[in-house]
Amino acid sequence: MFGNPEFDLYEAIYTTRAMRRLKPDPVSPQLIVKVIEAATMGPSGGNRQPWKFIVVRDRETKAFVAERYLKAWKMYFTGKARAIAENDPQSPQGRILRSANYLAEHIADVPVMIFCCVKRYTDPWRAGQPMLNAIFPAIQNLCLAARGYGLGTSITGLHMRFGAEINERLGVPPEYDNVALIPMGYPKGRWDRPARKPALEATFWEKWGNSIATIPEE
Amino acid sequence: MFGNPEFDLYEAIYTTRAMRRLKPDPVSPQLIVKVIEAATMGPSGGNRQPWKFIVVRDRETKAFVAERYLKAWKMYFTGKARAIAENDPQSPQGRILRSANYLAEHIADVPVMIFCCVKRYTDPWRAGQPMLNAIFPAIQNLCLAARGYGLGTSITGLHMRFGAEINERLGVPPEYDNVALIPMGYPKGRWDRPARKPALEATFWEKWGNSIATIPEE
Repeated sequence: MFGNPEFDLYEAIYTTRAMRRLKPDPVSPQLIVKVIEAATMGPSGGNRQPWKFIVVRDRETKAFVAERYLKAWKMYFTGKARAIAENDPQSPQGRILRSANYLAEHIADVPVMIFCCVKRYTDPWRAGQPMLNAIFPAIQNLCLAARGYGLGTSITGLHMRFGAEINERLGVPPEYDNVALIPMGYPKGRWDRPARKPALEATFWEKWGNSIATIPEE
Repeated sequence: MFGNPEFDLYEAIYTTRAMRRLKPDPVSPQLIVKVIEAATMGPSGGNRQPWKFIVVRDRETKAFVAERYLKAWKMYFTGKARAIAENDPQSPQGRILRSANYLAEHIADVPVMIFCCVKRYTDPWRAGQPMLNAIFPAIQNLCLAARGYGLGTSITGLHMRFGAEINERLGVPPEYDNVALIPMGYPKGRWDRPARKPALEATFWEKWGNSIATIPEE
């Protein structure tokens, strides 16, 4: 459909976990544009399409970003976070932290980085706020479409710690925010359902706090 | 897969446009929970799962929200916006505005409202910011999963104009932001690909401004 292979929607939704260990194998520009096209199908108030996607495959640019990304990661990966990763490496938190640490140490070698940039509101009541409600649904489309092609992604914002330097290097103009960096490539690990609480625990009925243990037949 | 019907991923991505004209037919609680479960499969940094979904089907609560939603819409739908809808009703902007106007005038009658609430960051460098990067990918999963069941959705934030009153009515605690209202139901209109510019126009290669007219074979 739409020039894409067939892939089950729910399989994509239920198995698109963050894939942070990526093979260095290149990704074709055709596939890169297909996943960006899927992103642009995301909802966009007033059809503003306030997004731009910068695809980086150049080795030097990736190294420039990687240096700053790793620095930002090291600022975060200290104290308690590091202790969990080292003392409880197989716990759910330990596994996430080790995988994030792997990404930070190897991000220069991912085949593709996609930087997701978005405009800011100009309405008086929310002026200056980036249109995150437009870019993040688009990003989810991108990650799901990539999944259908067997491409792994994760969504990070750590590069924003050194956003000024990275935006200067990439030439991002001041009226855009560079809110997400998506490393993309063929994954080393296997697709899996993310560990989530039962949906009923995240659901309230009519009013906050009203939860139910089982779904009524209706 | 995962207790869901089969549905093509790319068909979902390419045809999940905002469906603002909804039939009053009820939606089963089973389906409501399935689409919320799909939402919770969205990415969540550190697996925080910082979201709660309030499902509103009660007529009085819907009427309370609808009154405020329509008031917020009328504050927006004046001057230039109204002129476009009236003078150029078949233009792309005119169609969006008329459909949004329809929703505002009929929102009390949608079968289900889903309010999407999310926690705020506590890290010093972004303290107080709602975790929009977690809730909006989840919301996109919700809308796509709904599409697979033939359920139409749209994403609105207009209720936030009267967020304090609505949050008090729903009992949303102060540590959560109620960032999106999703009216959901069986659509009156037909599914369609949203009008978007070609993906290549939203894509830059290596650096801002570097666009290409055709994709190289590689």
